[in-house]
Amino acid sequence: MAEVKFEKISPADFFYRNRDIAGFTNPSRSLYTSIRELVENSLDACEAGRILPDITVELREEGEGSEDVKIYRLSVEDNGIGVKAEYIPSAFATVFYGSKYGFRQTRGTFGLGGTMALLYGQITTNRPFTVISSTGGEINKFTLMIDIVENKPIIMEHEVFKNPDKWHGTIITYYLEVDYSNSKGKIIEYFRNTAIANPYASLTFIDPKGRLYYYPRSTSKTPEPPKDALPHPIGVDVEMMRRLLSVTSCRTLLSFLVTSFQRVGEKTAREVLKMANLDPEMSPRELTHEQITELVEVIKRYGKFRAPDPTPLSPIGKELLETGIKAILSPEFLHVVQRPPASYSGFPFIVEAAIAYGGAIPPSENTQVYRFANKIPLLYDERADVVWKVISERVNWSNYNVQKGAPIAVITHICSLKVPYKTVGKEAIADRPEIERELTIAIRECARELKRYLINLEKRATTLKRINIYAKYLPKIAKFSATLANRKEVPDVRKLLRRMGVTDDILEKVKLEEQENLEKLYQI
Amino acid sequence: MAEVKFEKISPADFFYRNRDIAGFTNPSRSLYTSIRELVENSLDACEAGRILPDITVELREEGEGSEDVKIYRLSVEDNGIGVKAEYIPSAFATVFYGSKYGFRQTRGTFGLGGTMALLYGQITTNRPFTVISSTGGEINKFTLMIDIVENKPIIMEHEVFKNPDKWHGTIITYYLEVDYSNSKGKIIEYFRNTAIANPYASLTFIDPKGRLYYYPRSTSKTPEPPKDALPHPIGVDVEMMRRLLSVTSCRTLLSFLVTSFQRVGEKTAREVLKMANLDPEMSPRELTHEQITELVEVIKRYGKFRAPDPTPLSPIGKELLETGIKAILSPEFLHVVQRPPASYSGFPFIVEAAIAYGGAIPPSENTQVYRFANKIPLLYDERADVVWKVISERVNWSNYNVQKGAPIAVITHICSLKVPYKTVGKEAIADRPEIERELTIAIRECARELKRYLINLEKRATTLKRINIYAKYLPKIAKFSATLANRKEVPDVRKLLRRMGVTDDILEKVKLEEQENLEKLYQI
Repeated sequence: MAEVKFEKISPADFFYRNRDIAGFTNPSRSLYTSIRELVENSLDACEAGRILPDITVELREEGEGSEDVKIYRLSVEDNGIGVKAEYIPSAFATVFYGSKYGFRQTRGTFGLGGTMALLYGQITTNRPFTVISSTGGEINKFTLMIDIVENKPIIMEHEVFKNPDKWHGTIITYYLEVDYSNSKGKIIEYFRNTAIANPYASLTFIDPKGRLYYYPRSTSKTPEPPKDALPHPIGVDVEMMRRLLSVTSCRTLLSFLVTSFQRVGEKTAREVLKMANLDPEMSPRELTHEQITELVEVIKRYGKFRAPDPTPLSPIGKELLETGIKAILSPEFLHVVQRPPASYSGFPFIVEAAIAYGGAIPPSENTQVYRFANKIPLLYDERADVVWKVISERVNWSNYNVQKGAPIAVITHICSLKVPYKTVGKEAIADRPEIERELTIAIRECARELKRYLINLEKRATTLKRINIYAKYLPKIAKFSATLANRKEVPDVRKLLRRMGVTDDILEKVKLEEQENLEKLYQI
Repeated sequence: MAEVKFEKISPADFFYRNRDIAGFTNPSRSLYTSIRELVENSLDACEAGRILPDITVELREEGEGSEDVKIYRLSVEDNGIGVKAEYIPSAFATVFYGSKYGFRQTRGTFGLGGTMALLYGQITTNRPFTVISSTGGEINKFTLMIDIVENKPIIMEHEVFKNPDKWHGTIITYYLEVDYSNSKGKIIEYFRNTAIANPYASLTFIDPKGRLYYYPRSTSKTPEPPKDALPHPIGVDVEMMRRLLSVTSCRTLLSFLVTSFQRVGEKTAREVLKMANLDPEMSPRELTHEQITELVEVIKRYGKFRAPDPTPLSPIGKELLETGIKAILSPEFLHVVQRPPASYSGFPFIVEAAIAYGGAIPPSENTQVYRFANKIPLLYDERADVVWKVISERVNWSNYNVQKGAPIAVITHICSLKVPYKTVGKEAIADRPEIERELTIAIRECARELKRYLINLEKRATTLKRINIYAKYLPKIAKFSATLANRKEVPDVRKLLRRMGVTDDILEKVKLEEQENLEKLYQI
């Protein structure tokens, strides 16, 4: 019989072997993913301290390589809250070690991206990376590598510096072998779109040729930072219930339910416990396997919980979204909608959507879509995203007078404590029915506003055409009538025209046109 | 300054929190994914021992639940090579512990799916699972749960039985809360398509109503089982080079290169080492960081390696693929193409493609696509797959006389030591340029054959039409001529007609038609 060899690998090793699934598919995509993961960590680090973000990304050519794929030095600097010295090695050099496993809205989801970016650098260049960080006290500088097999940091150097200016923030510098020439477009698009969703951030990108891409903040208003939340009972499975039970300091099951979950008051807790045949005064530690299972089952059947609390969410907000879109797209028409909070499997979410039309938006065969989730732009796998499904299947654009090839952009933002990404690369959102529904309503509402605008535009065009005709022919009719009546004085039609809405400007324009026509006529 | 809490989580915990990315998105998809992961492990376990697979899947309703989402008992039984007792707990109850991390073509890729299926069962029902397995000796039965926080098995019971019949195989039984009514379609489709790609497997599915879906093997020929391979130098990065150097028993760098990689002979090895300024007689353990990096860089620049060795690949083969497609789709036309081996980043792959037309294939708005990778069907995220890209963008179907709505099915199979999936859920393959190219060539070749067939079909139809006209009018013309010539005897045109290809059958049919027409004429 064939012999099978079993082995256990570390999480770092798993992602080293399968970097495709974290967005590191090829040298160009990997550069995009690296920049994006580090910038998003920086934005989160600022938001956590309600700091106006100042982020600088610099990419410098370092060594030779094949034609497009070269070794670059990437550094990302932010003014966020910084990381304490004791956490730095593990936070940057251990997979599945992070600060984003709480129940809170963050750009990062998997606690993976930053470390993956550094891991990618290491496996392509074999060089260590440096992290300089301060929370306002002393400044720490670490030179690190990742032990991939063991999934732990190798500290090569650690220096401590004084910090008289009380600087706080983080600077990461490392080397990676990537393809800039083929990823440039996506990277610039990434910065531009990040500026739309984060108009309070100031972003600077210095490319390998020394060119500066600078997106200054268009407002200094910061949105409410996201807050921690208690879990909603509907999203809790047996495993989570067991964990909560094992760490609670409550003495009774009743107080456990009331304090461990949102939306559970004493009355609700008593009803649930009665349905599950559990004594409210029982100790939370005494539940058997079967009782835990029954409790979770009853919660699923209960059906009377209020929807999850949306206050921990941090949407962009209508005003900031408008500022962001206007600053970057300069449209002629813009309508922004923020939907009331909704929820899926115990996780609250808010959908924001906008339609921009005309102005600096170029006409295009396909609708331009700008997708955001928890304030980060999503640039790949557009067709696999729920937004694309809604735009192409749920909205009948001709109903809204939108013709094929119109200069239109749809902007969507979904914020949630847990965005249901389809991949670790955070590129496409799954079509959870609740999210699809909210998106559809929001986009249709924007489309209705656009329709109103387009109808007005058309009306104005028709009116203008009518006015032009009057301006052109009324004077001639007046002249003709005068001649017919044998009167020298032609009646002044200006007053009449003015009442019809024909301004002197229009009249002047029509006169000039007529003269040109006349000249053309006699040239022939 | 805000305080940030860091924590480390285990791989099991990571996938528990992010089960969406492993394909466990909702109760219906989760059932599909569970069945598929276990069936694929079973197929791999048979193939490893070159055994004709006999796989039985049974789903039974167990407890109550909400309307569609209920608790089911799922059991999957195979006659594969079995798992040794010492490995069973870890292999089934530890994430990132598996037998598929070698350099070999398997259906499983991530060493994750089977454990994820059992993990899903545990977190939805809180019940243990049982694994019964034998490699031909004694039979072991384990009752297990997964310690998610620690990522290790909890052994609840272990029994050993005698095995007088020398049975080998594995039976997994567990409980999970899922939605069968909404996943039924995909599950049946999964079995049907698995039968196409594995015509030597016998598959049985017993659904909760006791209905039996049986796909008997349509051949007892097994394909060559996949073999282990050495890595190709092109796919090797610094990390892998370091690992290989640290485990080699070779005494010189020269022999290390020749024995650790495929496609590296002594001449090539010497050239590479010279370019990297390394002494061929040096010990592999003595290389510095910088020397390892330089060696990998030189290998990338070298450019003269032969393409990766395709012999470890196990394609379905033209003959088996034909058998499979005919058994399931019964088309009127079928053309199968197997492309010669190609490679991307050091991994060899083979593309097989087929076009089936007519017969039992229904006409449909969109081309029906059957996608396979390493012999497993891919049923979700079709539009995100490279195959869809090729079919919709690279092949101009009207060039091949294929009209919209034609009864056509495209079947593709990509086998590789490493299929570049976009997700852990194994649903869509990335558009690596080398794979896209091979697919395009293969599908176009099939399409050309289809075109030839369709043209012939049209020609035959035209001929038949002409023959029909002759059959209809020649007798009348003969009659008319006879009348005109005042001759009683009408000349026998049958001989002439027969020479033109008009058989007596056709003549009879035409006569009947004419009679009908006549009757209709006189009824009016």
